[in-house]
Amino acid sequence: MIYLLDLFGTAVFAVTGSLAAGRKHMDLFGVVVIGLVTALGGGTLRDLTLGADPVFWISDPTYIFVAATASILTFAIARFREFPSGVLQVADAFGLAIFTIIGAQKALGFGTAPVIAVIMGIMTGVVGGMIRDILSGEIPLILQREIYATASLSGAVMFVALSRLTPNERLNISLAVLVTLGLRLAAIRWKLSLPVFPSMAPKNHDR
Amino acid sequence: MIYLLDLFGTAVFAVTGSLAAGRKHMDLFGVVVIGLVTALGGGTLRDLTLGADPVFWISDPTYIFVAATASILTFAIARFREFPSGVLQVADAFGLAIFTIIGAQKALGFGTAPVIAVIMGIMTGVVGGMIRDILSGEIPLILQREIYATASLSGAVMFVALSRLTPNERLNISLAVLVTLGLRLAAIRWKLSLPVFPSMAPKNHDR
Amino acid sequence: MIYLLDLFGTAVFAVTGSLAAGRKHMDLFGVVVIGLVTALGGGTLRDLTLGADPVFWISDPTYIFVAATASILTFAIARFREFPSGVLQVADAFGLAIFTIIGAQKALGFGTAPVIAVIMGIMTGVVGGMIRDILSGEIPLILQREIYATASLSGAVMFVALSRLTPNERLNISLAVLVTLGLRLAAIRWKLSLPVFPSMAPKNHDR
Repeated sequence: MIYLLDLFGTAVFAVTGSLAAGRKHMDLFGVVVIGLVTALGGGTLRDLTLGADPVFWISDPTYIFVAATASILTFAIARFREFPSGVLQVADAFGLAIFTIIGAQKALGFGTAPVIAVIMGIMTGVVGGMIRDILSGEIPLILQREIYATASLSGAVMFVALSRLTPNERLNISLAVLVTLGLRLAAIRWKLSLPVFPSMAPKNHDR
Repeated sequence: MIYLLDLFGTAVFAVTGSLAAGRKHMDLFGVVVIGLVTALGGGTLRDLTLGADPVFWISDPTYIFVAATASILTFAIARFREFPSGVLQVADAFGLAIFTIIGAQKALGFGTAPVIAVIMGIMTGVVGGMIRDILSGEIPLILQREIYATASLSGAVMFVALSRLTPNERLNISLAVLVTLGLRLAAIRWKLSLPVFPSMAPKNHDR
Repeated sequence: MIYLLDLFGTAVFAVTGSLAAGRKHMDLFGVVVIGLVTALGGGTLRDLTLGADPVFWISDPTYIFVAATASILTFAIARFREFPSGVLQVADAFGLAIFTIIGAQKALGFGTAPVIAVIMGIMTGVVGGMIRDILSGEIPLILQREIYATASLSGAVMFVALSRLTPNERLNISLAVLVTLGLRLAAIRWKLSLPVFPSMAPKNHDR
């Protein structure tokens, strides 16, 4: 069940990555690379830092097939019609929630401290999108605005906290997904955002 | 033999990296860093994801010496004369072909699935150039145009397929190098490129 | 003692990262991420390439707490007053010196060749700042000007050379820190820099 959700999140992230690549007028190969990186980048960095050798998509190439297929389909379909951005945002929020829980869960399985499990959850959820933005020549969006990573953080904290209280994993996962999903959808709906760094340094802007 | 070709590819990639750094007016240190990253970045990511500890240039620092020397020589020589871009493109195509085969071969040695060996081949061939472009403040060229990664993909698929058919490694390597080299040189000669993502989203361009 | 200096360097790098993030008007989350990446990025890449599983901040989450706290405090304090850039530059030079020695020392402990220990020292000292610049949408500063990485290189070479001559680690560390610190402060004071790549390729600038 969680495996199927994971593959669903992989496909969704590959689609959002491919669309971002398309906006930069990349060729087919570029679209597939950005799709793969968006879908697999977070989990890859998580596995590398945790010391999970080899990384998950080498142990199970299904992830590669799902992400590549989603990217190629996006490339093909985008010639004929636009993607509905509302549906995509909700699907992306769902993918974020799933990836966050899976990352935190995997870290706990490695016996890490709770704070590390939270970081691994966020890393799994947001790093793919960050690399996507860097490869597209942009400052990563999640660093600049909107409650995106914060939704991931909240779900990861919830999951790690619940895991210490009860072994009912199915319940813990469901509640943590709801937290991330609810926060993220609320942020989209009401355009919530965190405070921005105060403008502080006219003298420093040329550093 | 393949080791000498590998060092040749390392030197060539260091030269192209150094020249790219030069175009951005980096200092000597920057030129050497970009040269090293271009030459060693792909193999490093391959070894990290495969779980090959430690990475190849730690086991054998010859790669460091070759890449650093090539970068410093490029820096020194570029003061007096221009590099012939035609020769460089051919040498770079040869380096791409070698790196691709070596990456795929190493992955197969780790017992990965064929699709993973293909990905490791491409990764070894193109990731160094991608990091070079990112460090230079540009969107990676290979994501945007020209048959570059596609030549790497073709050579990797050829090598992995041949490896399942016959144990004659020398022949397999030669044929796979020819495929990559031929495709890449043809792409340079006739300016071939993949289809580009259709312009699809005037409403999305401000995402 | 060296552990406390390491945590001091971690805090200083987190502060400089947070200030850079602030200049880009990132939100609180972005500031903390850039702070963490600046403080921990170099050591993370060092541990990944060395094969030190898991990376240091997973083994000891104190680094996470120090870097996150420094980032949040920077975010809070910057609302009320500017940071004294002179003090920051000196603190940053000190952090660079410490990180360099720790990186080289850890590599020697893994039994690497001297040249690799030098590279690991530089990597620990400068990679965090490079990722900070990339995430901020800029070409890494250290590739372009000023004796920064060169100070790190000199300290690393000094430390590795001394380590082969005498087992007096306390003395070796002190001397190597002095070399890096002295060079870096001299570079700030007199605006020293390395030669820049000659402008060589008007024909190539459109590559």
